[in-house]
Amino acid sequence: MLLSVCLNPAVDITYRLATSLVAGDSHRVASVSERAGGKGVNVARVLHRLGARAEVLAPVGGANGRTVRTALAATGIAATLVDLRGETRRTVTAVDDASATVLNEPGPVVSPDELADLIRAYRGRLDGTGSDRVELVVLSGSLPPGLGPATYRTFTEIAEKQGIPVIVDAEGPALQLCLEARPYLVKPNLSEVARTLGEPVGTRTEIVASGRRLLGLGAQNAVISCGSDGLIAVTDDRAWRAVSSEVVSGNPTGAGDALVAALALGTARGEPWPQLLRTGVAWSAAAVASPLAGELDPSEADRLHAGVIVEEWEDGHAAGSRS
Amino acid sequence: MLLSVCLNPAVDITYRLATSLVAGDSHRVASVSERAGGKGVNVARVLHRLGARAEVLAPVGGANGRTVRTALAATGIAATLVDLRGETRRTVTAVDDASATVLNEPGPVVSPDELADLIRAYRGRLDGTGSDRVELVVLSGSLPPGLGPATYRTFTEIAEKQGIPVIVDAEGPALQLCLEARPYLVKPNLSEVARTLGEPVGTRTEIVASGRRLLGLGAQNAVISCGSDGLIAVTDDRAWRAVSSEVVSGNPTGAGDALVAALALGTARGEPWPQLLRTGVAWSAAAVASPLAGELDPSEADRLHAGVIVEEWEDGHAAGSRS
Repeated sequence: MLLSVCLNPAVDITYRLATSLVAGDSHRVASVSERAGGKGVNVARVLHRLGARAEVLAPVGGANGRTVRTALAATGIAATLVDLRGETRRTVTAVDDASATVLNEPGPVVSPDELADLIRAYRGRLDGTGSDRVELVVLSGSLPPGLGPATYRTFTEIAEKQGIPVIVDAEGPALQLCLEARPYLVKPNLSEVARTLGEPVGTRTEIVASGRRLLGLGAQNAVISCGSDGLIAVTDDRAWRAVSSEVVSGNPTGAGDALVAALALGTARGEPWPQLLRTGVAWSAAAVASPLAGELDPSEADRLHAGVIVEEWEDGHAAGSRS
Repeated sequence: MLLSVCLNPAVDITYRLATSLVAGDSHRVASVSERAGGKGVNVARVLHRLGARAEVLAPVGGANGRTVRTALAATGIAATLVDLRGETRRTVTAVDDASATVLNEPGPVVSPDELADLIRAYRGRLDGTGSDRVELVVLSGSLPPGLGPATYRTFTEIAEKQGIPVIVDAEGPALQLCLEARPYLVKPNLSEVARTLGEPVGTRTEIVASGRRLLGLGAQNAVISCGSDGLIAVTDDRAWRAVSSEVVSGNPTGAGDALVAALALGTARGEPWPQLLRTGVAWSAAAVASPLAGELDPSEADRLHAGVIVEEWEDGHAAGSRS
């Protein structure tokens, strides 16, 4: 079982507008779709969609929390949900022919006793045995108000001490502090790396160097996603670049979550790095190609898989070994 | 008891943005407020706020319907709520320093059997006696999908046949058809009159003539609201203009609902027209002055009351009698 921790879940509301969005105007919404969201929930959804066993651990509160609970149950994604007094946040995305405009509510204030409840539930899940045994933990997304930047460090420590690998998709202080707990893998994107390390990251040589810095700060491995330019992976003694040979256009929202899902599944299965990265780029590209943000067509992921180029890198240069 | 019928209630969500709204961007919401809405609910809220006894009759469904139910209960507004299978709509208003951008979800599809439930509940309320006796009905706002344009005519007929006066705030076919049932009062604004009658309405002489046309089509009385230019009232044999002498700037959203609330209360109390119109303009101006859309400070309404000018009109000219 892959456990995806989502500390700031959301009800994601998407409005298809009948006309273009104009600031200051009133707009008729042509259609409404609503589902459970938050990066950790989205990672679990991709895994579930691709046939992997994934479970969500999340705090939920209020009417929006009930909507998250109902929506997860309807999709068949297993979940350990911890009750909050506050109200789970919503995101509203208004889509017209030209663009998508997003309004992000602040998350609920999580109190210290509610954090204690969460950690208790988390420990409880990590103690699961048999078919319920957690093989890997994903920590992904923003932290709600009230949870300090050391929260992911605590969650990482608890799992890694039990020998359960942790993949972290976070940025800034939450990622920085988390590195101290030696997570198995961190997956920032280019601008998140720049913000976290406080240094510009442009060329591939610089990206590999940034990955090495993340390892120096404690990460066991780092995958840095570079949008349509693929990704750079840095491990203890090697580095790879992986990219789709097919240019895929579409909606990049959720592509990072699909990448994390692939990395989680491949890691849990003990796949070698080139294979794991190939799947990561394919799932990520399939998410971009999907008309619905964060959705993914498994057959499209399969098709794109063959067209992914994986190159080993040495000192910032392709080492010549392609697979 | 004043009964405000709200056939398309809503959960009104207001987002205060931390930055200006830009189409295609992501925005952090600084604060969220949420309340029951829809014009019929807003009329009842104003009446309740001003100390009058008002009750809402509305269909509600789904998670948003539960939110409407809870919000009405929390404000202490009495309500007869009829269950729908569909989902009650939301409106999202994103407010920045410059403007308010509105996203209106479509309402739920109300089926014929659900309409029958609504009419049964409506007849039940009109049969109430003693302190529960309904003295006046307000029909206000849009109709949800599935309800035809003759719906307000049916609701008007049922009440007027029992001698209960009906005030209608609607437009287009719903207003046109409703006139056949001889409602006590209709309250369109200038552009609604123009759309309903299919003729331009500009000068005060034209406005009075339009009011006469509404009476010719069946309305017993008409009040046409003209924004900051006040209102024109047309009765069987007389016409008035009422306007605030104080220029009030602010948020005009909900000013029409405040006017309807004042007209409803004054009519139920049997107040003479000049007095009723004076209160209508004062409440409407107080709603504009309120920082929160549709809210109203009773002491501000009292203060503005003294500054309302009411003039009787004859053949489109002031008759010289001011009160």
